[in-house]
Amino acid sequence: MIRHTVAFKLKHAPGSEAEAAFLEAARVLTTIAAVRNFEWLRQVSPKNPFAFGFSMEFASQQDYESYNVHPEHVRFVETRWKPEVVDFLEIDYVPFEP
Amino acid sequence: MIRHTVAFKLKHAPGSEAEAAFLEAARVLTTIAAVRNFEWLRQVSPKNPFAFGFSMEFASQQDYESYNVHPEHVRFVETRWKPEVVDFLEIDYVPFEP
Repeated sequence: MIRHTVAFKLKHAPGSEAEAAFLEAARVLTTIAAVRNFEWLRQVSPKNPFAFGFSMEFASQQDYESYNVHPEHVRFVETRWKPEVVDFLEIDYVPFEP
Repeated sequence: MIRHTVAFKLKHAPGSEAEAAFLEAARVLTTIAAVRNFEWLRQVSPKNPFAFGFSMEFASQQDYESYNVHPEHVRFVETRWKPEVVDFLEIDYVPFEP
């Protein structure tokens, strides 16, 4: 399992309609078959510059790659992510037991 | 629920005994009563400088604060984290539904 996370900051004012519309628009990502356990996250630590996060899980690297090129994902990135996100950091995790 | 995560990089060589010992030493954090769903994570994205992560969940802000001052946590930070971690980023998430 690969957990793909991205912490981000929007250009919109906190609590604005534009902010809410962006977060709602991300719902399309949950319709992509490879995406499991999608989460909307509020980032609450003062130790980084981000206000939100998304988290999703893929069963395999192949599923992850199918998501990256999926037309709904590509459309979301081009039409919402690039114009509305001002800062972000992707962190991908694979759980393990030492 | 608050999910506390930290992505980090160790000073140890990848695959070294010192690396394994650090990761094993973190097991003490799982014994702290407030800590739920502790995970060891391998960070696999090339888009950030971190090699590992820890994730844990707290039922409340009060539980989070009790963890921060818990003697086993403080001891781990002083004796292992500070001497062995060369870079890290804390990200704390609260899931929500838009």
